[in-house]
Amino acid sequence: MNLYETIGARRDTRREFTGEPLPDDVLTRVLEAAHAAPSVGLSQPWDFVLVRSPGTLAAFREHVVLERDTFAASLSGERARTFDRIKVEGIRESGLGVVVGYDPSRGGPAVLGRHAIADAGLYSVCLAIQNLWLAATAEGLGVGWVSFYREEFLRDLVGFPAHVRPVAWLCLGAIAERPEVPDLERAGWRRRTPLSTALHAERYSPR
Amino acid sequence: MNLYETIGARRDTRREFTGEPLPDDVLTRVLEAAHAAPSVGLSQPWDFVLVRSPGTLAAFREHVVLERDTFAASLSGERARTFDRIKVEGIRESGLGVVVGYDPSRGGPAVLGRHAIADAGLYSVCLAIQNLWLAATAEGLGVGWVSFYREEFLRDLVGFPAHVRPVAWLCLGAIAERPEVPDLERAGWRRRTPLSTALHAERYSPR
Repeated sequence: MNLYETIGARRDTRREFTGEPLPDDVLTRVLEAAHAAPSVGLSQPWDFVLVRSPGTLAAFREHVVLERDTFAASLSGERARTFDRIKVEGIRESGLGVVVGYDPSRGGPAVLGRHAIADAGLYSVCLAIQNLWLAATAEGLGVGWVSFYREEFLRDLVGFPAHVRPVAWLCLGAIAERPEVPDLERAGWRRRTPLSTALHAERYSPR
Repeated sequence: MNLYETIGARRDTRREFTGEPLPDDVLTRVLEAAHAAPSVGLSQPWDFVLVRSPGTLAAFREHVVLERDTFAASLSGERARTFDRIKVEGIRESGLGVVVGYDPSRGGPAVLGRHAIADAGLYSVCLAIQNLWLAATAEGLGVGWVSFYREEFLRDLVGFPAHVRPVAWLCLGAIAERPEVPDLERAGWRRRTPLSTALHAERYSPR
């Protein structure tokens, strides 16, 4: 797959996981791709915790179900009915959670490029996540980013020290098929907009 | 170029820009790649301001030079001497700045997946930046992320409203050659570490 094909084929996967275990070499390629991401001051400030324990997966899922309810309770009418049809996680079905953390103490004490933008290290972690996502796509795997959780819960669950910030829980695994259309679009939650809505020349122009 | 080749070839580019203007179709492919990134709740919360005006490029560069001095003043000894050799921007040489903003009002009022993680939208913007970076690499272009600036300066410079947060200034342009080794490694600032330093099984383990 070339890069543009991979970018076009990448989807957020929730329903399609088969639970089939991943070969070590495939998983290593995907993680190496993440680790090859750019980072501010070459700090490589990410951590990846691979969670396969059924107990941990179940505990995280239980927490996510509660947070799903919290969000659902904030909706009404058509939004509530539409959200009701949407699956927000494939934690147990994927069989593997990659918990991504941000460690601001990495690459220090003086991280080149971070003195004025404190969040630059956090941005680096996200670049690594996108590399991981694309590599998984090229390998025919699915990734589902779960964000229905509280950071402190996930920090405790995987034992991050206080200075490491949880950034993502990524369900990673083999999938039966790759959806062509984003789940949220298919469910009628929201449609993608064209690039022109986000593009400005020389200065920002309100739309 | 396949995905892994692109990920391996991607560098942060500062010295190599030629200033040659980009064909419209190439620039559009690169921006469409960014716009195809995953986003929380399909909110696509990014803005891209394309800056080519020599006056704006020069004004931004002037600000960045001052911030470079601020960081340099915090260093001493070997760190100061090493930093002295490092170029931190190619703002005028690239001829094009892509200013990336985060608009949290996009995709609302209820953004699916953001009620518990306020920064999830910011994360989405970074995923778009990595797509852009890889697409530029596949097109043979260079990208240099400049982070020696104050957010409020950049907000004013490109006219972002108060609710849009500047996330990046990306120098984007044709390059004479692609460096094989990261600039900071070449200059002796810092070396890349192996993946094993960032990898944990089931729970975080301090290194």
